[in-house]
Amino acid sequence: MPMNMTENEITLAIIKAVQEGKKKSFRDIIDELQPYDMYQQYQAIPSKHKYKFLYYLSIEQLTELMEELELDDKLDVLHRLGIERSTKVLDLMENDELASFLSDLEPEKIEELLSEMKPKESQMVQDLMNYPPETAGRIMNNRFVWIKKHYTIGEAVEKLKEFAELAEYLNYLYVIDEDKKLVGVVSYRDLLLADNSQKIEDVMYGRVVKVDVYEDQEEAAKLISRYDFVSLPVIKEDGTLAGIITVDDIIDVVIQEANEDIEMLSASGKAIDFNTKPWVAAYRRLPWLIILLFVGLVSGGIISGFEETLDAAVALAFFMPMIAGMTGNTGTQSLAVVVRGLVSEDLTLKQAGKLIFREMWVGIFIGITCGILISIIAFFWQGNIVLGMVVGVSLLLTLIIGTLAGTIIPLILYKLNVDPAIASGPLITTINDILSLLIFFGIATAFLSQIV
Amino acid sequence: MPMNMTENEITLAIIKAVQEGKKKSFRDIIDELQPYDMYQQYQAIPSKHKYKFLYYLSIEQLTELMEELELDDKLDVLHRLGIERSTKVLDLMENDELASFLSDLEPEKIEELLSEMKPKESQMVQDLMNYPPETAGRIMNNRFVWIKKHYTIGEAVEKLKEFAELAEYLNYLYVIDEDKKLVGVVSYRDLLLADNSQKIEDVMYGRVVKVDVYEDQEEAAKLISRYDFVSLPVIKEDGTLAGIITVDDIIDVVIQEANEDIEMLSASGKAIDFNTKPWVAAYRRLPWLIILLFVGLVSGGIISGFEETLDAAVALAFFMPMIAGMTGNTGTQSLAVVVRGLVSEDLTLKQAGKLIFREMWVGIFIGITCGILISIIAFFWQGNIVLGMVVGVSLLLTLIIGTLAGTIIPLILYKLNVDPAIASGPLITTINDILSLLIFFGIATAFLSQIV
Repeated sequence: MPMNMTENEITLAIIKAVQEGKKKSFRDIIDELQPYDMYQQYQAIPSKHKYKFLYYLSIEQLTELMEELELDDKLDVLHRLGIERSTKVLDLMENDELASFLSDLEPEKIEELLSEMKPKESQMVQDLMNYPPETAGRIMNNRFVWIKKHYTIGEAVEKLKEFAELAEYLNYLYVIDEDKKLVGVVSYRDLLLADNSQKIEDVMYGRVVKVDVYEDQEEAAKLISRYDFVSLPVIKEDGTLAGIITVDDIIDVVIQEANEDIEMLSASGKAIDFNTKPWVAAYRRLPWLIILLFVGLVSGGIISGFEETLDAAVALAFFMPMIAGMTGNTGTQSLAVVVRGLVSEDLTLKQAGKLIFREMWVGIFIGITCGILISIIAFFWQGNIVLGMVVGVSLLLTLIIGTLAGTIIPLILYKLNVDPAIASGPLITTINDILSLLIFFGIATAFLSQIV
Repeated sequence: MPMNMTENEITLAIIKAVQEGKKKSFRDIIDELQPYDMYQQYQAIPSKHKYKFLYYLSIEQLTELMEELELDDKLDVLHRLGIERSTKVLDLMENDELASFLSDLEPEKIEELLSEMKPKESQMVQDLMNYPPETAGRIMNNRFVWIKKHYTIGEAVEKLKEFAELAEYLNYLYVIDEDKKLVGVVSYRDLLLADNSQKIEDVMYGRVVKVDVYEDQEEAAKLISRYDFVSLPVIKEDGTLAGIITVDDIIDVVIQEANEDIEMLSASGKAIDFNTKPWVAAYRRLPWLIILLFVGLVSGGIISGFEETLDAAVALAFFMPMIAGMTGNTGTQSLAVVVRGLVSEDLTLKQAGKLIFREMWVGIFIGITCGILISIIAFFWQGNIVLGMVVGVSLLLTLIIGTLAGTIIPLILYKLNVDPAIASGPLITTINDILSLLIFFGIATAFLSQIV
């Protein structure tokens, strides 16, 4: 038993067992490993031993390994397993895992893999894949125990024992009526504490928190984190129970949604991680950068429109990066607050109005503080009180407008159901750049005679 | 039963029951509500009914309500309950919830509340509060069932039934030896499928994934999301079992850590949500803005250092915002990739080297593409091929340097264990601003005779 062995020692023991053809020692080691650790070991051993590693694993262990692997490695393992074993593994894989794996493949490959599977398993996966990405239906699974409402507690416990292998968590049993509609939920705790002859419908909890198959996965995440559930039932339009979403999938959703928010704030493009190839990463980041390059030229165009002002008072150029940068910063701050607030709060019209009003006041406070500060600095640096006033007033105005732009633009996009990635951080920054230059040079031009 | 009532109907029914003094109808409604929904109802009813609402709740329900409330409302409820009931509620509250509530209070208030509680409960909460914030010890709780390794399966099931009320999840039982050291874990599934007379130590799983009390809460989150557990045991230095961390707390950790990353990228300051008062929000965002204001003035200083160049070729000013903006954007993109990558990947030196190398290539690809593009645009706009070349080459260099700065700075800070908030997005943007202006004006000055 590898209880007290380090990971490296386990790797060596596995290689030894594989080399010497000792299947039993190999299994003894693997049996003690969690799926993630088995996956780490599979990654760690030299390539030439991988074939035998797979050969020695049971179908259940292969399935666990498959669920941990990256896309390319999944395909590689299926290929190495051959058609018979790989089909058994696909049949055993969790439906939601399989659906998510298949949806990354070419249509022909999907069909090829599905055609070998058991019709029932294959049909269930296809059902899942028919729901749009990032909906509750797409991430649900069928590893739960349901009972009928007329069961007694005793009957329910029997069924629970029978399906213990299948159910992911044993915390709740979902109760359905004759039409398979979800009508209640019973916790395992309730079963333990109730009398064996009592009816389920008398002890069940009838006000079930549930989610529709077509609901956004973020909504499911919000409910699970709000109610501290470990699973959430998913229902079809007719109220029948379609599946459950489990908390481990929700953690992945929460991380994924946070990453999407950050990709949006930084325009870094979808799903770049440490292992993405440089050209792929560059290709994903470029579209935004090129758009922003053109938008940046608009700023340049504005400055060129004020060429005479700039020619007359080159000192204005010294304050340009500060004003543009500050406006961009406040805009991004407001944007971040709005985007992350929506993760846990529902957005009502009242809430939105309150938020805009709050951010306006934040802009005013920040603007007054920074405006006074920069007026004093500009006056001492350039020795011109009007220049100081122009810079200060410009900063006050641009900070208020920048804060409001960073609040209102994402709120409008959210309400219009437009992909909020459009309101990415750099775009807000660039819009605020343009607004700030217009305000700054506009005011400076009006007072030009007093500045030079 | 309010099974099919809307939230508004429930609110009206609750108000009616309270007004007419019908405690039984009130309880019937509340019994069907989840803690979060009860909290929503408490928020929804008019203030004058809140006293009676609290009066009608059982101690258990009050405890559930308390755990949902915001800080100010918690204090308000404790005040309304009076010393006797409020102490009962505090005794019943989950230790981690109570520790997190108390740590937001003044020391005198903490002492006052703790002194009334049962010595045992009070001691446990104080133990938790002794662990530093954001460690595993701080977020663990004691709602788990432990068994000794020499128990039989039958004895373990008995103990499980006995403590079913107390345990949060019934998925795993933790196994300890004579010295209270954690030596194994048994899933409830294993219990159901094993023979009643078997010994626990023969069926338990010995290679327990666990976390140290002083470990960062992020590490606990990484383990739970990696292994798909619903709870994770926490051990003290001597190997004894101190508590468990449950998945519902980990979801909060994941959201909190994502928010911290975003606060860092946007410098929006800690814990600003939709309900923060405007002056508080402004106060939290200001420190960074003022620092960035001064850093922005450094950019201005650089430009003023190149005043002669700028005077001779005002057209250079037109490209300034674009070059500075683009460099800031690539830096933020790299920063975002590094920061979020660390959420799920462990950072080895090899991994860091690989990442820097990858980002360098991304910078080169992006730099060449955008450099060529802007050279052509600049040539056609200003009709000067040397100006076009100067702008293009500057952009190529600044994009490579910007990408590297956005990668290396956060990696160094992470390795030095410096609060990564220092590498906030606006700071990277501003550093990149300065670098890009130096490069741009440096090259432009060298070729000045050919530009004008």
